[in-house]
Amino acid sequence: MIKPPQRLKELNKKKYEKVLKRSQVKIDEVIKVIIPIIKEVEEEGDEAVLRWTKKLDKVNLKREEIFVKEERIKEAYKRIKPEVLKALRRMEKQLKDFHIQQKRSNLISYRSFPDGGEYQLGQKFVPLERVGVYVPGGKGNYPSTVMMGVVPAKIAGVKKIILASPPSQNGEVADEVMVAADIAGADCLIKVGGVQAIAALAYGTQTIPSVDLIVGPGNIYVTAAKAYLSAIGKIAIDCPAGPSEILIIADESANSEYIAQDLLSQAEHDENACAVLVTSSEKLARNVYLYLKEKFVLSARKEIIEKSLGNYGAILIVDSLKEAVNFANEFAPEHLEIMTEKPEKIFDKINNAGSVFLGDFSPVPAGDYLTGTNHILPTAGAAKRFSGLSVDTFLKRLTFQSLSKEALSSISKDIITLASQEGPFEEHINAIKLRLHNF
Amino acid sequence: MIKPPQRLKELNKKKYEKVLKRSQVKIDEVIKVIIPIIKEVEEEGDEAVLRWTKKLDKVNLKREEIFVKEERIKEAYKRIKPEVLKALRRMEKQLKDFHIQQKRSNLISYRSFPDGGEYQLGQKFVPLERVGVYVPGGKGNYPSTVMMGVVPAKIAGVKKIILASPPSQNGEVADEVMVAADIAGADCLIKVGGVQAIAALAYGTQTIPSVDLIVGPGNIYVTAAKAYLSAIGKIAIDCPAGPSEILIIADESANSEYIAQDLLSQAEHDENACAVLVTSSEKLARNVYLYLKEKFVLSARKEIIEKSLGNYGAILIVDSLKEAVNFANEFAPEHLEIMTEKPEKIFDKINNAGSVFLGDFSPVPAGDYLTGTNHILPTAGAAKRFSGLSVDTFLKRLTFQSLSKEALSSISKDIITLASQEGPFEEHINAIKLRLHNF
Repeated sequence: MIKPPQRLKELNKKKYEKVLKRSQVKIDEVIKVIIPIIKEVEEEGDEAVLRWTKKLDKVNLKREEIFVKEERIKEAYKRIKPEVLKALRRMEKQLKDFHIQQKRSNLISYRSFPDGGEYQLGQKFVPLERVGVYVPGGKGNYPSTVMMGVVPAKIAGVKKIILASPPSQNGEVADEVMVAADIAGADCLIKVGGVQAIAALAYGTQTIPSVDLIVGPGNIYVTAAKAYLSAIGKIAIDCPAGPSEILIIADESANSEYIAQDLLSQAEHDENACAVLVTSSEKLARNVYLYLKEKFVLSARKEIIEKSLGNYGAILIVDSLKEAVNFANEFAPEHLEIMTEKPEKIFDKINNAGSVFLGDFSPVPAGDYLTGTNHILPTAGAAKRFSGLSVDTFLKRLTFQSLSKEALSSISKDIITLASQEGPFEEHINAIKLRLHNF
Repeated sequence: MIKPPQRLKELNKKKYEKVLKRSQVKIDEVIKVIIPIIKEVEEEGDEAVLRWTKKLDKVNLKREEIFVKEERIKEAYKRIKPEVLKALRRMEKQLKDFHIQQKRSNLISYRSFPDGGEYQLGQKFVPLERVGVYVPGGKGNYPSTVMMGVVPAKIAGVKKIILASPPSQNGEVADEVMVAADIAGADCLIKVGGVQAIAALAYGTQTIPSVDLIVGPGNIYVTAAKAYLSAIGKIAIDCPAGPSEILIIADESANSEYIAQDLLSQAEHDENACAVLVTSSEKLARNVYLYLKEKFVLSARKEIIEKSLGNYGAILIVDSLKEAVNFANEFAPEHLEIMTEKPEKIFDKINNAGSVFLGDFSPVPAGDYLTGTNHILPTAGAAKRFSGLSVDTFLKRLTFQSLSKEALSSISKDIITLASQEGPFEEHINAIKLRLHNF
């Protein structure tokens, strides 16, 4: 079970680094396993996809069953609980409302040089043409992740959104996943998962179109396949995903029960999930610890919680909120809850986090499902370098310039100077001279 | 030398794909070579960096010589030609003027649910803390690339910008590189190149700080090292870079000499550079071909141009500008020149390109150095999925939410419905219930 509260300053280096490290996904160790699968899918297409689906998912799919049929989706609407349908529709509305505000405007900038010569330059945003959204299956089914991946792509204006999710043993995808894909606006849904799904989306097969970008969480093999195909330049990806995590910053004004409960709710996800509290109040730390010890045994997922909190959990006491902020920026959590007297003041100083939850009534599950922010977020400290999913993920930027002869003339000498210095690139220089002499 | 004009429609599949493919960098083939170097730098730090610098760059550097000293930079200012200094200063001004317009504003969105309950959500942009900018050395020296990498990082607000460039055989970095780094605002400059520089920036050494992101072009080993370290989640990178390339779209109104000259100026970069014209005018195609044949023999770089145009060049005739646009979007060039009667009309239909040059007086060398757009751009078709370098490259986005009790109450039922369906995640549900009952 979770260790008793400790003073952050008193942790030795090894313990400190263990807390920071959490359960890192070791992608390099599985690369060898996934490359042969990828190569087979690249070379054989559907046949390899179906063979690996049989081998790994134990489902004997036929080629014409790869795509989920329209009728199946219509039936799924009838089968799911009405309250789930209602909640998914509301979720879509909330996600749209927030993500639409992320849309970019093109820029066109009219300029002229002091010595005359007008020119324009700017940038234009264009959606990616085709994208794949991967949603894991297996133990659970995750219609909310479907929404999180598809809605921003749709808002960006992606023409073809292909959802991929592994079939369960009956050869089907969960009804809720089908309905979520339909509500969010996915164009098609393939019943393929794992490395074979990622490879099929990257290279295309006889039936599955290739895509430019693949987003969405998966197990270590899926993550490694995305990383490998991105490294060789075949596809773009979102940021690599690992187990979910929370860091909570709290002072003496916070409610210890809320905090303990939020640690439990993160820990129940997965044995490798990570839940850490950093607080300036020794009393709060103690109360959280006692609540956790009392409550976790009552949980339906107590084995998971015990492992998760035992291996990756911590209650850390700091001397000041400043120390807590420094720790948070070093930890760079996927989810950060701030429960202090003035949470906005603390948030101002936070540089590294995926999504931030301010105050007593903003628990992470609200953002998991309904606030409208995205829940596909960087984990394991990657928030230092990466952002969560957004409309931007699905856009590229083209820059452009259009010069008058006078503008080109105004900068010609400096172009020639630099081209002479760097290459010298004589033909670059000729390209300028030819234009200015021939007018 | 370059092949005579061909009709695009009449190319067989193999030839068509050869044009599209250009000289792809095969990252997977060099991964085995670079991993041992990376591991040595990770484990030994500076010692391995110095050993590999000796082995590969033939320079016997001491640890205290890794960082370029302030005095050296001051001396460099005195040694470089005054016109180069002037041109670099103007370049910085132009780059700043354009890139400042790319800055993002934070977003805070005040919302309330119809049944009451106010909440806020938003996004905050934060610069990466430390970044590395890699600039190749070897045959040439590239102060312009220094500018292109450093200026947007500076505008984004990056706290520490480390420039890395290999030493030439005298153990120094070119004066122009030092001066460009200083003008652009790099915080320090290390005389280290190759895989050892990338590994040192990723892991940090005794003297070199680790960074969150590495940008900038390099040879295949540098590119592979960046790709590998990004795939295992260690660093973020810009888009993988390959040999430079141009596609020109032209109609009968265009100037064939300008076009031919621009193809030459792209081809002179590198044997693997790629220069392609696609035109609706048979006459123009012929004239460009004749000009090329006549002129390339006069070039100081005629061997390079002959190989580049011979292997990767093409003059393609199409039936219509629509066909040219479709080809351009499929080709997704790094640089696209549009020389038609109404270039803006064509540009409207372009979705895939790094940077676009409109009209007769916007040759690529203008953008290489002086218009203000960035010249670190996606190559080899990656413009389908990636953008060139921009201020965004150096920013991350944090999202946040702050709910009133009433707002949480308003969405509580839907959160509980979804958490019950997905896990069920009982502790998620408890996190909501606890807050709403205890008020």
